[in-house]
Amino acid sequence: MRGRADHTSPGIGFERVVFFSDAVFAIAITLLVLDLKLPETAHGPVDLRLIAPKLLGFAVSFFAIGIYWMAHHRLFETLKGQDGAARAFNLLFLAAVAFLPFPTSVITERGPETSAVVFYSGSIAAAGFLFILLAAVARRPSLLIEGEGTGETLRFLLRASAAPLVFTGSAFVALTRPGLAMETWALVFPAVWLFDRVGRLFERASARTEQPSVSDAA
Amino acid sequence: MRGRADHTSPGIGFERVVFFSDAVFAIAITLLVLDLKLPETAHGPVDLRLIAPKLLGFAVSFFAIGIYWMAHHRLFETLKGQDGAARAFNLLFLAAVAFLPFPTSVITERGPETSAVVFYSGSIAAAGFLFILLAAVARRPSLLIEGEGTGETLRFLLRASAAPLVFTGSAFVALTRPGLAMETWALVFPAVWLFDRVGRLFERASARTEQPSVSDAA
Amino acid sequence: MRGRADHTSPGIGFERVVFFSDAVFAIAITLLVLDLKLPETAHGPVDLRLIAPKLLGFAVSFFAIGIYWMAHHRLFETLKGQDGAARAFNLLFLAAVAFLPFPTSVITERGPETSAVVFYSGSIAAAGFLFILLAAVARRPSLLIEGEGTGETLRFLLRASAAPLVFTGSAFVALTRPGLAMETWALVFPAVWLFDRVGRLFERASARTEQPSVSDAA
Amino acid sequence: MRGRADHTSPGIGFERVVFFSDAVFAIAITLLVLDLKLPETAHGPVDLRLIAPKLLGFAVSFFAIGIYWMAHHRLFETLKGQDGAARAFNLLFLAAVAFLPFPTSVITERGPETSAVVFYSGSIAAAGFLFILLAAVARRPSLLIEGEGTGETLRFLLRASAAPLVFTGSAFVALTRPGLAMETWALVFPAVWLFDRVGRLFERASARTEQPSVSDAA
Repeated sequence: MRGRADHTSPGIGFERVVFFSDAVFAIAITLLVLDLKLPETAHGPVDLRLIAPKLLGFAVSFFAIGIYWMAHHRLFETLKGQDGAARAFNLLFLAAVAFLPFPTSVITERGPETSAVVFYSGSIAAAGFLFILLAAVARRPSLLIEGEGTGETLRFLLRASAAPLVFTGSAFVALTRPGLAMETWALVFPAVWLFDRVGRLFERASARTEQPSVSDAA
Repeated sequence: MRGRADHTSPGIGFERVVFFSDAVFAIAITLLVLDLKLPETAHGPVDLRLIAPKLLGFAVSFFAIGIYWMAHHRLFETLKGQDGAARAFNLLFLAAVAFLPFPTSVITERGPETSAVVFYSGSIAAAGFLFILLAAVARRPSLLIEGEGTGETLRFLLRASAAPLVFTGSAFVALTRPGLAMETWALVFPAVWLFDRVGRLFERASARTEQPSVSDAA
Repeated sequence: MRGRADHTSPGIGFERVVFFSDAVFAIAITLLVLDLKLPETAHGPVDLRLIAPKLLGFAVSFFAIGIYWMAHHRLFETLKGQDGAARAFNLLFLAAVAFLPFPTSVITERGPETSAVVFYSGSIAAAGFLFILLAAVARRPSLLIEGEGTGETLRFLLRASAAPLVFTGSAFVALTRPGLAMETWALVFPAVWLFDRVGRLFERASARTEQPSVSDAA
Repeated sequence: MRGRADHTSPGIGFERVVFFSDAVFAIAITLLVLDLKLPETAHGPVDLRLIAPKLLGFAVSFFAIGIYWMAHHRLFETLKGQDGAARAFNLLFLAAVAFLPFPTSVITERGPETSAVVFYSGSIAAAGFLFILLAAVARRPSLLIEGEGTGETLRFLLRASAAPLVFTGSAFVALTRPGLAMETWALVFPAVWLFDRVGRLFERASARTEQPSVSDAA
């Protein structure tokens, strides 16, 4: 009842998806530099303060895409294959990543203005939620490598939730205080750490539940 | 009488073609974002409705290229090698894919206007027809992996015909009703499903014809 | 007396060079589409005749880069490793390939005008001459796979000379008749065929000279 | 106490980092061509002298990125794996590489003017210092392949210091004589050679210190 080549095809097929994803990440991250331009009116010495918001936008988006790339990396390290559904959600997630240079150019042009910060934070959060969807679809038990189970999946999803939650929160803060919202982005780092810690508790609890049956079998 | 390295070269040569193709797909799909720009005159809050057609164009082209990439992916999974002809048709198909960001920028600038929709639908259809040509050339029996035969090729070509036929139809609809033509694009999904179903019937019929000779040999 | 990692390093090092080269080819070939833009003044129906020279430039440069990519492909299929010199000449050749979108944009803007055609033809020819240099450096006997010898190298270099010679000739024709010069580009296809034929004669002559010593040893 | 997948993961994980890095290098190096544009006012014959500074900027940045790519290449050839810290520093270094097209466009627009040359030289130097940091983090003993030790690391770091030191010096020269500063860039080649020589002395001294213990064991 299923298409032949669509299911958990190992080898070259799987690698091509990883490769294609990496290329989209690399291009999106490198295209960010195209927004960096000196104002055309300025003909005096180069004054980087004039483009400070652009430089900040370049840096934040570079590391946002970089963080998603590393998470994608970690996700695919735990998979032994993938099916058509995972492939489709992967494409959807990549569309959101390839889209990010646009909100970056919007925020670097408009600066700390409510609609721009909401759009920017919302776009990064949306990419993150699509990643959680992808991870949930791709990490179904039959597609995982040995040693990965429900506990690990729970931890993975929790950790992946940190960035989109921070950026969703920042979008709400931007409704009243866009300048402050941009500062809340720095919360991504402690949030990832915290969510990973909590996730590890779940992972261990899950390991304890599963272990007895293993020792029974032994 | 033939060039040495041009024929069904396995290993690195084959992989390079796959790799090069993937890179072209990934770049074309990511370049689409460069068309997304806020109108320069607007200095109020970010109003995404102003660029709604651009966002639609980004989404449609992203998934059109994505669908062709997945079809290319499925094609190469069934090949064990390729010759100079397949390589040349692959390059021709890639030229059509690399071209797609241009009709996308045309339609997102002009909106639902006859000549723009005809050009856009026609370009996507043309890429699809070149893919059918590539598949017909690349899937000659001597280049297929084991388990792939005439029935599978018939099904593959039928399925690959769905998208270019829908977009050709949409180009004709656009001659009188460009707005409606853009809505017909959604027919791609049921069309792919339908053509794949019909193709499976051919595949089974073909398997029945071939089976006796197998049991004779046994 | 030599740097350690610079010499005929097999495995990942060699593959990275191939990979990096492929990526530069793929990006240069896909960036060509960025030059395709409708004239800003035109607001009537899309008239492709207005951008016919741009479309021609896209097509010619796509296939020029494509031809060099396939030649690069054939070159690396015959190598078992490479040294620092080959790596440096490869980078030089890639610089010329990455440069090609610029003369393409010049000729599509200026059309059949002497200086533009000379610059365009000359740039493609220059890339081709750098490729011949690269091939001569990379195909030294110690770096070739088994079965490749002086005869094959001679044939390879002859075939690789076809495109740069045609484009050099076309640059000279452009000095007096730029329109005609653009038509001479089509000579690339028969020239590659002819030079490859002549090269095969050398290859065979070289095989005959080497064979006796083989039968002596037997 | 450590994340599972973050540490010295071999196979696909390691390759993906190499691949992603290569793609960023290739894109950054190829995007440089987008800066090459004829002045819009010029409608006479193509006069390359008008864009001579742009051509020089293209060439210098192409080879600066190319040199960093080859150094990155040499670095990863000596590693058997990497951990989270190396991955993070790699991303930081790639951000600096992806940034380079911007200072390139600044210097090609402004020419030999103090602030532009300081910014350009400083950006290339900064990328180089981040590379030294990456090399120091990535070449910790537990991550090196066999045959690589402290002496080799010392030599590697010395050699990697040559380019950033020359460009830092050039930034200081630019404060008073920007034109001369651009000429000092050519010192990169003898500097790399000299630092590599000195590094080899350290490497040998280190080998002599370690050898006795080897012969003791034998």
